[in-house]
Amino acid sequence: MMMNTQLTVAPMLERAEKYFSKKEVVSRTFDQMHRLTYKEVGRRTRALSSALEKLGVRRGERVGTFAWNHHRHLEAYFGVPGMGGVLHMINIRLPKEHLVHVINHAEDQVLLIDEDLLPLIENVKDQLTSVHTFIVMTDKDELPANSFEVVYSYEKLIREGDDSYLFLQDIDENEPAAMCYTSATTGKPKGVVYSHRGIALHSLSQGLTDSTGVSEEDVVMPVVPMFHANAWGMPYTATWFGTTQVLPGPNFTPKLLAELIQNEKVTMTAGVPTIWLGLLQELEQEVYDTSSLRAVICGGSAAPKGMIQKFERDFNVPFIHAYGLTETTPLVTLARLKSYQKKLAEDDRLDIRASQGMAVPGIDIKVMNETGEVEWNGEDMGELLIRGPWIADQYHNDERSKEAFQDGWLHTGDVVTVDEEGSIKIVDRTKDLIKSGGEWISSVELENAIMAHDAVKEAAVVAVADEKWQERPVACVVVKETYQASTLKNEIIEFLKPQFAKWWLPDEVIFMDEIPKTSVGKFLKRALREKVQQ
Amino acid sequence: MMMNTQLTVAPMLERAEKYFSKKEVVSRTFDQMHRLTYKEVGRRTRALSSALEKLGVRRGERVGTFAWNHHRHLEAYFGVPGMGGVLHMINIRLPKEHLVHVINHAEDQVLLIDEDLLPLIENVKDQLTSVHTFIVMTDKDELPANSFEVVYSYEKLIREGDDSYLFLQDIDENEPAAMCYTSATTGKPKGVVYSHRGIALHSLSQGLTDSTGVSEEDVVMPVVPMFHANAWGMPYTATWFGTTQVLPGPNFTPKLLAELIQNEKVTMTAGVPTIWLGLLQELEQEVYDTSSLRAVICGGSAAPKGMIQKFERDFNVPFIHAYGLTETTPLVTLARLKSYQKKLAEDDRLDIRASQGMAVPGIDIKVMNETGEVEWNGEDMGELLIRGPWIADQYHNDERSKEAFQDGWLHTGDVVTVDEEGSIKIVDRTKDLIKSGGEWISSVELENAIMAHDAVKEAAVVAVADEKWQERPVACVVVKETYQASTLKNEIIEFLKPQFAKWWLPDEVIFMDEIPKTSVGKFLKRALREKVQQ
Ligand SMILES: Nc1ncnc2c1ncn2[C@@H]1O[C@H](COP(=O)(O)OP(=O)(O)OP(=O)(O)O)[C@@H](O)[C@H]1O
Ligand SMILES: Nc1ncnc2c1ncn2[C@@H]1O[C@H](COP(=O)(O)OP(=O)(O)OP(=O)(O)O)[C@@H](O)[C@H]1O
Ligand SMILES: [Mg+2]
Ligand SMILES: [Mg+2]
Repeated sequence: MMMNTQLTVAPMLERAEKYFSKKEVVSRTFDQMHRLTYKEVGRRTRALSSALEKLGVRRGERVGTFAWNHHRHLEAYFGVPGMGGVLHMINIRLPKEHLVHVINHAEDQVLLIDEDLLPLIENVKDQLTSVHTFIVMTDKDELPANSFEVVYSYEKLIREGDDSYLFLQDIDENEPAAMCYTSATTGKPKGVVYSHRGIALHSLSQGLTDSTGVSEEDVVMPVVPMFHANAWGMPYTATWFGTTQVLPGPNFTPKLLAELIQNEKVTMTAGVPTIWLGLLQELEQEVYDTSSLRAVICGGSAAPKGMIQKFERDFNVPFIHAYGLTETTPLVTLARLKSYQKKLAEDDRLDIRASQGMAVPGIDIKVMNETGEVEWNGEDMGELLIRGPWIADQYHNDERSKEAFQDGWLHTGDVVTVDEEGSIKIVDRTKDLIKSGGEWISSVELENAIMAHDAVKEAAVVAVADEKWQERPVACVVVKETYQASTLKNEIIEFLKPQFAKWWLPDEVIFMDEIPKTSVGKFLKRALREKVQQ
Repeated sequence: MMMNTQLTVAPMLERAEKYFSKKEVVSRTFDQMHRLTYKEVGRRTRALSSALEKLGVRRGERVGTFAWNHHRHLEAYFGVPGMGGVLHMINIRLPKEHLVHVINHAEDQVLLIDEDLLPLIENVKDQLTSVHTFIVMTDKDELPANSFEVVYSYEKLIREGDDSYLFLQDIDENEPAAMCYTSATTGKPKGVVYSHRGIALHSLSQGLTDSTGVSEEDVVMPVVPMFHANAWGMPYTATWFGTTQVLPGPNFTPKLLAELIQNEKVTMTAGVPTIWLGLLQELEQEVYDTSSLRAVICGGSAAPKGMIQKFERDFNVPFIHAYGLTETTPLVTLARLKSYQKKLAEDDRLDIRASQGMAVPGIDIKVMNETGEVEWNGEDMGELLIRGPWIADQYHNDERSKEAFQDGWLHTGDVVTVDEEGSIKIVDRTKDLIKSGGEWISSVELENAIMAHDAVKEAAVVAVADEKWQERPVACVVVKETYQASTLKNEIIEFLKPQFAKWWLPDEVIFMDEIPKTSVGKFLKRALREKVQQ
C-alpha cells in the first residue's frame, strides 16, 4: 500500500549533507573553537563508522561515549548507529561504582573518551569486563600518556577511515540506536535503549511548531549534556533540519554560555534549571545581547516560577518549561500557551508557563490514584502514566522493569495534577511526597516557594519521621553569600505563612553550605534525608 | 525496547477532543454556517462510526464520500477509519464514466452524498455494483426526493448512533485508512490507498516549522477539495494540533473565500493556482483585510511567478509553492527560503519561491535520465523519483503499478531539474515535453511566460507533429475580457522573444474561449492536443 521506508537515524545526517552542506556546527573543545560544515561532519562521521567496523564492532553492540558536548560526540551520535552499533552515552559525573556498573552492564565494546576525562576511565579500567578498545578524542596530534593496551586517537582513525562509507541500508526502525542510564536519583541507574524509530519520531515531534519547533533558521545550543537522554534529542533534530549547532564543550561557565549566545546569535538553548539560574546571575551582573533567543528550554527538574518570570520580564527571553525522563527519549510535555490563553492576565500566563504543560502529539498520558483515573481538575493528584512510540517498554536487563512498565504504560513515579486544559503539574516524586496526618504535602511546592525568597540560593524539603503525624517537612536551605543564615529561619517561615496552610509549614529550617546533588544536578533526597536524620 | 504504539488516525481526533475541546470547526453548508467545537465533532464522529458499524461495514471495506468541504466530510475523515473502514473520497467532478469506474473499482459499500450532488449519483446508480447503502448529508430534516432503495439521513443516523463509541483500539498502522484516485490528467484514474501510518507521518511533517508548520494558533482553510488527496492532509493535521478549521462548503466563489479570510481571520489556506488567480482578481477589485494570512499554499500545477509576486508584493500575502501527487499523500516538496537565501535580491528570492522547492524531512528524491542520476546543477533534466513512508508502493488493483513503482521508487512522470541547493523545478510532464529537432522544450515554461502578459487570462502549450522538427510548440491562449484576440498574436510572440531561444517560440498562437481542464482544474493536454490537431 505505502512504502515500507524505515525511520532510522543515518538519513537525518544524509539530509543535512545533501541540503545543508554549507551550514555549520560550531564546537568548542579544550584547545579551540571548531567550525565544521555539515559536509565535513558527514565525511568524518562516515569515516568513524568505517573505523568502528574495522575495529570489529558488530551490529547491535554497544559503543560508549564519555565526553562533553562537541562535534566528535555529535559524529558518534550518527556514526555508531549508522554502522549498526548502539551509542551508549555515559554520564561523565557518575560515581566510580555506578560508572563501572553501567559500562559492564551495557557490555560496551569500545569507549570514545575525552582527553581530560581519561583519568576517570583509567581509574576503573581493571574492573571493566567488556571493553576491548579505547579511543581518545583530542585536538592534539599526540595521545596523552596513558596505560591502556589497545588505544587509538580519534582523529587518526578518522583520517584513515573511509569518508565515503555507506551507512547500513537495511536497518529496521525497531533496531536499537542508542542507550542511556537514568540519573540514579532514586536508586541504581537503569538502562534505557532507544530504537531508531523512537529517535526519528521524537525528532519530528521536536520540529512541530507547537513543540520546540526546531527549524533550519535556528541556532541551537544544547547545554544539556550529550551524555544524558540524547541531549534531549537536539543533536538529532538539529542535524535533520539543517540547523546550526553550537556545542559548548568542556567545563563551560555561565559567562561562556552568555558569550556564546551573544556571539553565535543562539536562538534556542536547552538545559536544567541550575544552568539557567547560573546564567541569570551572569545576565544580572554583565550586559549581554541575548536578543537572538527565541526559546530557553528548561527541564529535568521543576523550573522555579520566579526564574521564569525574571527571564521573561527582565530579559525578554522566552522560556519553555518541558518535562521528560530518560525513559521517554525524553520529550513528553511542554508548557506553551494555547492561542486563547495568550489573552490571560500575566500572572495566569506565568502559572501556565511554570506548569509542565501538555503532552506533545503522539504521546498519551493518564493519571491514576487508588480510586482510578484522576479527573482533570487541577486538584486531584495521582501518578503520571505515559504511553507512546518513543517511550521505553522495559529497562535493559533489569528486574525493575516489571514494576515500572505495566499494561502498556510507563509508570513514572511522578505525582501530578492535570487541569481542565490538560496541563500537568508535577507535585512531587512518589518517594518524596510527605505524608502528614493522613494528608499529602508537596516537597516541590515548598521548595519553590522558599527559593523565591531573596536571601535563598537553594532549598530542598524532605520528610522526617514524626510520632504523632507520621511525617513532617524539614527545609534545608543554602543562603546567598551576602546574607546571614542565623537571622533567617523565622523570616522564611513568615514568608511561607501567607502561601500555605499552617500544617504545611516546615517544622525545621536547616542551613547548609550545599544540597547534595545527583550527577546531573538534581537534589539527591535520599542522601539529604540521611543527613537531616543525623 | 520502545513501545509498539501504532501511528493511527483516530488518536488525532481524540487529542483534539481532550486538549482542544473548545476550539472550533467553522463549516459552510447550503443552508447555514455551522460552528462546532472539537468536542461536538468528536461526539458526532463517534456516532458516525457506530452507525457505519451497524450498517454492516466491515474492517478494510470502503466507504465513499461524494461531498464538498464541510464538517460532515471531516467527520467521515475520522469516523470511517476510526471504525476500521477505508474512506474513499470521490471526486465530485468526474465524468460519468470515471465516476462509475472508481466506485465499482474501489468496491464502495456505502456512499455519503451531499444533497446537491445526489442527482449525479442517482444518474449512475444502476451501474454501481457494490454499494448497498446511501446516506444523504443535508441540514434539512427531510430527505430530498430520491430513488434509492436503502437510504438514510446522515443527521438521523448520527442522532441514533452511539456518541461515546470507542474507536477501534487494535488497528495496525499499516492498515488502510483512506483512498483516492488520481486526477486522470494522463489517462484513466488510478487508485491510491493511504495507510494510517502514512497519514500520521504526513501530518507530523506538515506540522514542522520548516514545512507548512500547522499550529494550534492557526486558522486553516483548505480550499483544495476534501475529495482530492486528503485535502493535502490539512483536515488530519489541523485536527491533531487543535487548529481552527474553516471549511468553505459548496460552490464557493472568490468573493466568498475573500470574505471568509477576512471574517474568520484565516492564517493559512491551500489550493490550486486557478483558485488563487481567482482570489487575486477579487482582491484587485475590492478591498479586504487579508492581514491574518501567514501562508497561501499552492500546488497541483505550477504556480505562475507573476502570481506569486503579486500576492507577495502587492498584497503582502506570503506564498508557499508546494508539489505532490495523489500517490504521495500528497506533500513531497515545498519552496521555502533557507536562512541564508533570505539575504538574496528580490528577484532571486522570487525564483526560489516559484520553484517547487525541497523535499520535506522523511522524503527522498532522485532524478534519473538515460545516463543515470542527474547532477544537482539546475540544468540537467530527468524524471523525478520519490521514496518515503507516505508514498504509495502500488496502485489499487492496477496493471499500471508495474511501470510507476520500480526498485522501491515512485516514478512520477514529471521531468525536473534540481539546483545546487536541492530545489526542484518541474520542467514538464514526460508526456507533455515537446521534442523539437532533438532538443526538449518545456511547455510549462512557455505557458508561464505567456500568462505573465497583461492581456492573457490562461495559456497552455502543446506539441504538434512536424515533419522537419518532429514536434513544434503551439500556444493556446484565452484573453481577458477587455482585450481583443485579433491583435495579440504578434504581440505575444514579441513578448516571448527576449526570454527564450528562437527555436522555443511557438509556431502558432491559437485563441480559445476556454482551455479544456481536468476535474481539478488542470490543463487537459490530451484533449487540447486533439483540438489543436483539428
Ligand atoms: N520539568 C520538570 N519538572 C519537574 N520534574 C522534572 C521535570 N523534568 C524532569 N523531572 C524529573 O526528572 C525525572 C526524570 O529524570 P531522569 O530520567 O534524568 O532520572 P531520575 O528519575 O532523576 O533518576 P532515576 O530514575 O534513576 O531515579 C522525572 O521522573 C521527574 O521526576
Ligand atoms: N507545484 C506543482 N507544480 C507543477 N506541477 C505540479 C505541482 N503539483 C502537482 N503537480 C502536477 O500534478 C501531478 C499530480 O497530480 P494528481 O495526482 O492530482 O493527478 P495527475 O497526475 O494530474 O493525474 P493522473 O496521474 O491520473 O494522470 C504531478 O505529477 C505534477 O505533474
Ligand atoms: Mg526516574
Ligand atoms: Mg499522476
